[in-house]
Parts: sequence; structure tokens; C-alpha cells
Amino acid sequence: MNDTVMIIAESNAIEGKADQVRSLIQSVVERTRAEDGCLRYELLHDLDDDHHIILIEEWRDQASLDAHLASEHLSSLFQEMMPLLAGEGRGTRVSRVL
Amino acid sequence: MNDTVMIIAESNAIEGKADQVRSLIQSVVERTRAEDGCLRYELLHDLDDDHHIILIEEWRDQASLDAHLASEHLSSLFQEMMPLLAGEGRGTRVSRVL
Repeated sequence: MNDTVMIIAESNAIEGKADQVRSLIQSVVERTRAEDGCLRYELLHDLDDDHHIILIEEWRDQASLDAHLASEHLSSLFQEMMPLLAGEGRGTRVSRVL
Repeated sequence: MNDTVMIIAESNAIEGKADQVRSLIQSVVERTRAEDGCLRYELLHDLDDDHHIILIEEWRDQASLDAHLASEHLSSLFQEMMPLLAGEGRGTRVSRVL
């Protein structure tokens, strides 16, 4: 067993805005990976739905995830992304079984 | 960019059967990781929904994923799991952007 916290974060870009959303996320990837406790931060592309944008994140523990969620660059990213997204998205908190 | 193929495979166990589904998957994890082209095969547990079972897989290319999908142990696994699952599940084919 493992105490890390993983998040599968999914968003749907509105028509024609997927590239812009991906660019916004890409602009914070390096900064996020440099945060204390960030073990993995992968931006993924749904091969069957270009507008479906997925991040897989892994954090050392809930505290480092909480610090990330409170970070200023994440808050700015959300503000810039919100008008480009359809619906609320989905965040699934998972841990590794094996 | 990267030519690997990743799959996020999600299933929902019927009430009371989540542990049994996880055990079945666990029984094929080592065999699957030993398959040619398997780069990652992670069994995950949804921290907010015990019956939501998630696998993240990464394969060298579509050919190695296809060979895995045609493998006898996967077919046996599906046959054993099917009566324990609710609905059809969801498989998302993704590639890494960054």
C-alpha cells in the first residue's frame, strides 16, 4: 500500500477551444512539478475525443495536494480556463492498490 | 510527444463485490506487467467511491495493446468479472501531451 494521493482530473473544452485549454495547462506544468510533494503531473489527450482533457496527478500526501490547490498559479489557471470549459468537469481522488 | 498508448479503464462493481473484483484484477497484474510492451499497469481505488475500480495502463504502441486485449488471461478475467460489474464501464484511450 501507498499513501500518495492521485487525482484524475477531467475537463471538456468548448468547441474549438481544446488547444487553448491545453496551452494554458502546459504553461503551469513545470511550475506544478516543482511544487513540494508533486510526484506526477501528466497532461493527457483523449485519442477519441479531442475536447476531453485529462490530467493525472500524484501527490505525496493530502497536505501537499491541499497546498497545490491553494496555490496562486492554479487559481489563475482556473480563472483563465473557466470560460473555455463546458460543464463542471470531474475530479476523481484515487490511491494505488497495486 | 510520445507514441505510447495509455488506457484509463473504469468499472463499477455491484454492491458488495468490489473486493472480489479487485482480487480478480490483482491476480493478473504480474502476468500483464510481464507482457511485451506493457509499460504501466496500475490498479487504483477511488477514495470517494469504493465500488469504482480504475486501471491506468500504458502500452508501448497500439500493437502491444491489441496483443494484450487478445490474451487468454484477459479474456478469462473478463468472464469472471462480468457478473460482478454494474453497467458497461468506460475505457478512455489517451496519449501523453506533456
